[in-house]
Amino acid sequence: MSILVVGSVAFDRITTPFGTAERCLGGSATYFSVAASFFSEVNLVAVVGDDFTEQDAAIFKGRKINLEGLQRVRGAKTFFWAGEYGFDLNVAKTRDTQLNVFADFKPNLSEGQRKSDVVFLANIDPDLQMDVLKQCKKPKIVALDTMNYWIASKKDSLTRIFSAVDLIVINEAEVRQYTDEPNLVKGARQILALGAKTLVIKRGEYGVLMITRDAVFAVPAYPLENVFDPTGAGDTFAGGFLGYLASCPGHDDREMRRAIIFGSVLASFTVEKFSLDRLREITIAEVQQRYRAFRTLTHFEDFE
Amino acid sequence: MSILVVGSVAFDRITTPFGTAERCLGGSATYFSVAASFFSEVNLVAVVGDDFTEQDAAIFKGRKINLEGLQRVRGAKTFFWAGEYGFDLNVAKTRDTQLNVFADFKPNLSEGQRKSDVVFLANIDPDLQMDVLKQCKKPKIVALDTMNYWIASKKDSLTRIFSAVDLIVINEAEVRQYTDEPNLVKGARQILALGAKTLVIKRGEYGVLMITRDAVFAVPAYPLENVFDPTGAGDTFAGGFLGYLASCPGHDDREMRRAIIFGSVLASFTVEKFSLDRLREITIAEVQQRYRAFRTLTHFEDFE
Repeated sequence: MSILVVGSVAFDRITTPFGTAERCLGGSATYFSVAASFFSEVNLVAVVGDDFTEQDAAIFKGRKINLEGLQRVRGAKTFFWAGEYGFDLNVAKTRDTQLNVFADFKPNLSEGQRKSDVVFLANIDPDLQMDVLKQCKKPKIVALDTMNYWIASKKDSLTRIFSAVDLIVINEAEVRQYTDEPNLVKGARQILALGAKTLVIKRGEYGVLMITRDAVFAVPAYPLENVFDPTGAGDTFAGGFLGYLASCPGHDDREMRRAIIFGSVLASFTVEKFSLDRLREITIAEVQQRYRAFRTLTHFEDFE
Repeated sequence: MSILVVGSVAFDRITTPFGTAERCLGGSATYFSVAASFFSEVNLVAVVGDDFTEQDAAIFKGRKINLEGLQRVRGAKTFFWAGEYGFDLNVAKTRDTQLNVFADFKPNLSEGQRKSDVVFLANIDPDLQMDVLKQCKKPKIVALDTMNYWIASKKDSLTRIFSAVDLIVINEAEVRQYTDEPNLVKGARQILALGAKTLVIKRGEYGVLMITRDAVFAVPAYPLENVFDPTGAGDTFAGGFLGYLASCPGHDDREMRRAIIFGSVLASFTVEKFSLDRLREITIAEVQQRYRAFRTLTHFEDFE
């Protein structure tokens, strides 16, 4: 099945305790599509300025990523974000945001894009997410991501789009912020009550919790000795998760769980280097090998 | 195999967003021994004042807990701790500490206690932990817990006892504090280099990470809709973990992992009610049932 992702392609300036990467490739749709393309064909819908070079676009080449929807605006600049991480690499402090071409981003999907089976509405204005969703023709799975900014500034719009999708990918602080409920499981149930079937809660270095009406699945993150740059881990996770899911004939609990692991595997690679540098170099064989390492990491037997 | 635990029996005043429990039973050795006694015989070594009544001691009755080492000091009061949890029930703020009888606690083990196969040095002064350890005769497993206070005030003593034990149960903030290393895996390797074979890192609501020279095992915590009082979760975990381990003929990686799960299961019960109220009422059948629920929670299959 094919995937549609609508989100940002960006340049980032990332500062970590290990140094600064100036003007490196970033953006939710970038991380998502590269990760998802390990498993499925991806239609990328985003916008860049004319400062986005062929060399920048090379990240998408040789992968199953359809760039028909990557709009280029002449005389304008690509979305720019600067972030800085402290000692524990935990939360990024935003140092600069320049929306540039992204300020007027209003995607108009092509016929082909509208027929995508799996739709991922990356972290953009929830009204825009709804606008994109309305253009789609009977997708099998619609998923979205969001952020604290939209919870604070557009809660009603967010509630509308929460009610219209199948799957919400969200971090745990956002669950608490949206519901004002400290207990994560209770908060998750409140959000699921709006209509989505599945809530996938990202917990950073602690892994992922997937909650449906019938089941809970929890997986720790892969423990890494070298975490270099957490930027894009969440979007990479979503890409691996939905990319794998789109490659499955069905979407039962077994396949959802495998998808969570593949998402976690890809995210664990992303953080090992700046930007998409690690994602750029890994092979599907390395992805599969780390999937098996996740099995070893988490496996325990029944008692006797 | 029999277990020796040396630690505190205490009265706690616990304040959570759900209310305050005045003078409820607490203490590291209390939680530990009740949890461990689900699997093995426990020799409890601790001290109480004459305010510790028969009714208080009832928690130990009908369990495999040997109270020979529970010293009573006439005319003195039991160790008292008051703690308060906020909205997220995450970290307790200490409101009051009255050492009372605990100030002069200097255990002198009996012949029988010295021959215990498994020794747990609960969170007490590291010099006292060393003193107890020196009294023991060839225990098969020696484990310890500690806290930020000893890392800050008695680091050299702590390093000596870290080097003398097989197994260190510690929380992740303490690993970072002791090593001044933000990466948890690297920090764990530094501590293991001192001599212990196994580091068990408690991550509160995020579960447990067990690191040995050859393997890493990670397990999330059981997601609960009702977390009432986190007090004692860590000591309960240690009790379930070592209690199960002491009941095993060997201690290979398979059994260590099962032990981590049993510890996690027992801790997940502890937090459901104030003090030891939940631990007091559960049966081994409920423990086993939740072990199986942990399997369901974390299980995923290989990809095809």
